[in-house]
Amino acid sequence: MDELLLAGLLGTSASLTLRLGQTIFSSASLLFMSFGVEFYSYTAFCYLVTVMGLVLPWSFTLAMVDAYSLCAKCPLRQPGILWIIIMGDWVLSILALAAACSTAAVIDLLLQNGGSYCPPKFCSRYQFSAAMAFLSWILTAASSLFNLWIIPSL
Amino acid sequence: MDELLLAGLLGTSASLTLRLGQTIFSSASLLFMSFGVEFYSYTAFCYLVTVMGLVLPWSFTLAMVDAYSLCAKCPLRQPGILWIIIMGDWVLSILALAAACSTAAVIDLLLQNGGSYCPPKFCSRYQFSAAMAFLSWILTAASSLFNLWIIPSL
Repeated sequence: MDELLLAGLLGTSASLTLRLGQTIFSSASLLFMSFGVEFYSYTAFCYLVTVMGLVLPWSFTLAMVDAYSLCAKCPLRQPGILWIIIMGDWVLSILALAAACSTAAVIDLLLQNGGSYCPPKFCSRYQFSAAMAFLSWILTAASSLFNLWIIPSL
Repeated sequence: MDELLLAGLLGTSASLTLRLGQTIFSSASLLFMSFGVEFYSYTAFCYLVTVMGLVLPWSFTLAMVDAYSLCAKCPLRQPGILWIIIMGDWVLSILALAAACSTAAVIDLLLQNGGSYCPPKFCSRYQFSAAMAFLSWILTAASSLFNLWIIPSL
């Protein structure tokens, strides 16, 4: 039972894998959207860049914390910090879903009129960025769900 | 403690209020989007209509169940049915958020070029519809969060 309660806790290898996945996908989404593309002319794309710019440092920091806990064999157990992590994961997963959906909807609209609003080179980059944002959301949501397990033990 | 555990359970007046709010807002969103507006030319708007068409019967049915439980003073306690309700609420709240964000992003894009793609009469209807969808999402998410309380007692 104790094992089950700690399944999603910081400092396990599962948590480290999820955090590394979030870091990779959010940075891929940022890179596809930021370089060589006119993202700032669309509100939804600016929002995606903002949100992924929040997810990236958050996941990276938590991945570092996980790696440290794994090496030092000393899991984090302060309830205050755990609450901040739980809340942050929930808020970021909602924001990431919103950003990914907005981006996907705008890309779909840009592609509608035979792609005249969207040069093929740019459009495929936008699409990759949206796909990476969705993957990043799925992993953030998985982290949030795993976090539910530790609430009863707080 | 038992009171707290049952706070979000079906058959309380709080739950009935949430369900009625979801029904009202999702039907308002559907009405603003469906009548007199060319919603079918935009994928995001079709998606909103589909999702709100799912939220409406779901919330209405659960509001009826709540009202019946309140009158008959006999709350629903079958774990199988409660799991279906918990899962349904989570899935619908994710879908509603995705639909509301996609709609808002598309409206923003339509309004960008001085509103040339979006006659004022239509655009205000789209905006009302998106706002109602957001309100409906907030209430569905509140129901999902309240549902978390009953998981430990299942």
